[in-house]
Amino acid sequence: MRLISLTTDFGIRDGYIGVMKAVIYSIAPEVKIIDISHMVSPQNVLQGGMTAIGHIGYFPENSIHVIVVDPGVGTARRPIAGKIGTQFFVAPDNGLLTPMIEQARHQSRPMEFVHLDKPEYWLDRISHTFHARDIFAPVAAHLATDVPLNKLGTFVDDPVVLPLPRPKITQDHVVGEVIYVDHYGNLATNIRLADLAGLDQTGLLQVEIGGKSIRGLTRTFGEAEPGSLIALLDGEGLLGISVTNGNAAEHLGVSVGEKIKVRYR
Amino acid sequence: MRLISLTTDFGIRDGYIGVMKAVIYSIAPEVKIIDISHMVSPQNVLQGGMTAIGHIGYFPENSIHVIVVDPGVGTARRPIAGKIGTQFFVAPDNGLLTPMIEQARHQSRPMEFVHLDKPEYWLDRISHTFHARDIFAPVAAHLATDVPLNKLGTFVDDPVVLPLPRPKITQDHVVGEVIYVDHYGNLATNIRLADLAGLDQTGLLQVEIGGKSIRGLTRTFGEAEPGSLIALLDGEGLLGISVTNGNAAEHLGVSVGEKIKVRYR
Amino acid sequence: MRLISLTTDFGIRDGYIGVMKAVIYSIAPEVKIIDISHMVSPQNVLQGGMTAIGHIGYFPENSIHVIVVDPGVGTARRPIAGKIGTQFFVAPDNGLLTPMIEQARHQSRPMEFVHLDKPEYWLDRISHTFHARDIFAPVAAHLATDVPLNKLGTFVDDPVVLPLPRPKITQDHVVGEVIYVDHYGNLATNIRLADLAGLDQTGLLQVEIGGKSIRGLTRTFGEAEPGSLIALLDGEGLLGISVTNGNAAEHLGVSVGEKIKVRYR
Repeated sequence: MRLISLTTDFGIRDGYIGVMKAVIYSIAPEVKIIDISHMVSPQNVLQGGMTAIGHIGYFPENSIHVIVVDPGVGTARRPIAGKIGTQFFVAPDNGLLTPMIEQARHQSRPMEFVHLDKPEYWLDRISHTFHARDIFAPVAAHLATDVPLNKLGTFVDDPVVLPLPRPKITQDHVVGEVIYVDHYGNLATNIRLADLAGLDQTGLLQVEIGGKSIRGLTRTFGEAEPGSLIALLDGEGLLGISVTNGNAAEHLGVSVGEKIKVRYR
Repeated sequence: MRLISLTTDFGIRDGYIGVMKAVIYSIAPEVKIIDISHMVSPQNVLQGGMTAIGHIGYFPENSIHVIVVDPGVGTARRPIAGKIGTQFFVAPDNGLLTPMIEQARHQSRPMEFVHLDKPEYWLDRISHTFHARDIFAPVAAHLATDVPLNKLGTFVDDPVVLPLPRPKITQDHVVGEVIYVDHYGNLATNIRLADLAGLDQTGLLQVEIGGKSIRGLTRTFGEAEPGSLIALLDGEGLLGISVTNGNAAEHLGVSVGEKIKVRYR
Repeated sequence: MRLISLTTDFGIRDGYIGVMKAVIYSIAPEVKIIDISHMVSPQNVLQGGMTAIGHIGYFPENSIHVIVVDPGVGTARRPIAGKIGTQFFVAPDNGLLTPMIEQARHQSRPMEFVHLDKPEYWLDRISHTFHARDIFAPVAAHLATDVPLNKLGTFVDDPVVLPLPRPKITQDHVVGEVIYVDHYGNLATNIRLADLAGLDQTGLLQVEIGGKSIRGLTRTFGEAEPGSLIALLDGEGLLGISVTNGNAAEHLGVSVGEKIKVRYR
């Protein structure tokens, strides 16, 4: 069994996803296709990679992840495919894979990439505006039928990597920012528990965001009273901010980019 | 062939559904997965069960229905699985299955439930915040590979059942309420035709809602002039209110909980 | 492998799509189901067909396309199925298939239609309000198991065809209109390059819409500066209007039906 996942900013209204699936099944009828999300904010490249990364580790080895947020479609930006650890990726080379590449570097996992320059693995007719259907979908399907990377393109070692926002760590405190707001209004930040290791840990952990202050980490949503503003470690090991049975983004009036400060006192 | 259906309040933006599917296919590659809805209002437990119940009867025997609206995730609330009639269910034990349990009681169908307390059928690592991925998805997949309920947990006979709003029936009239508003603005109420049996049926059926009055039942949407406010029996045998080719919820300015009064006169 | 595609105005909140899939898999377990869109504007028949038509050509031969936007459900309007070129369609006979029929006439492709009047291929119980589940889904599934059209119904040669808006072509200019606005705010119009062939082509192509003027056609989104208002040929060969990395519908304050004028000068 081979899985192909799809993550895009195409929305669900216009049939763009359905036609990609028709192309994939036409080439690889045995594959199973999983939608990760098609609601990435239009043309927000970094959000595309961040939407997918937390889920990739739950896919079986040799799954294929098509990620397309492609403001430069039809221009000289390269289409690429690659293997990062045990997973394959197909995407425009515009920085979409930054979170996966950074994580693999951090974990010293092997990576290899090809510039997709073999049109024999694409649809016959290539539009200027819809490479997801014409190039990325058929390439993913060919990967699923065990065509190796080196047949699909030419090896390259310089995939585009975008700068990710890093937390600023001092002896006294750590300042990070909100990097994702989910459907429930839960906030994910770019601060990991490890980032707090160098702080003077006298006192209780204190989190400041949106003019509010939170003392201590909560273990689970249900542990606090409904309506409480809490800080907790999310599924990815990142510091998150939530309101129990509520919407933290609305409660605090904050969104992606909002600063968050952590210290012990 | 085994079908697994998914009904949640997870939305479609963050990939929560996709990763559940990756977990399911990893364990049960032959299964087919059907999305019922991921747009249940966040943390509205009763709506979760009500979204699914009308559709369950159209699934083949031994289908498995994962229903997750889980404000208490990570707390002591039990994860459960059960068989109701010919269908399996997997859910947090917080009342989500109330509509199915009530219906089965009404129809004297057999039911059995287990408290999911065998971690060997879960993912290796269990988060505090995402049991749908870590417990419910793998349990559903194991059910699909014919692992029996008694291996997945310990039998219990006290699943949580929430009070459902009942219509108030007098000799003169029946007062119910709106329990669901669909995508088109059609209103479903908690009044069944049988609830009207005891009324003095002299005259035409008259429905009062949102300050408006409707005389008689219409058989189908298309029978009345476009724009007409009509009362009809919906696919579930419940009294429904619609506007032909329009939106009754907007037309009447009403939503879930609105009272509706029926009498003959 | 047989593909069944679904295009409806049912939304994704109420489980209407999930139950159609349960019905289809019950009859044709080997089929693969692809969602084109369920976000057609409620009861907008013409938009239903237009959402699907651009994608049909990418499906393998003998795929089956269920298209349901059905304001007249439960009335005398016929349920139909048909073969247009190499593709099957199942729909209410209310004009939904107009774009496919017009295209097939234009390309002189063969067509045949049946009035679905054989209840032995439907569900046992037919509701007045949900023929997509009770008639169209089971008929599509039977088509996928190779039941021929003539068993499913009686041949008819008069499927309903709605008038499509045509561009007005004079010696001097062509006036068309916006027929679709996609998720990104890109505008599709009813003007094809061929419609411009008769114009005096002295000078550069000039497009006027929403009080703005655009000179020349751009080849791809990425070719112009971010924020530029551009005219280009979309994937279907229709004149489209976009804002590079932006939203043309919002930028121009226009929607479906807006006039667009093209000339050379």
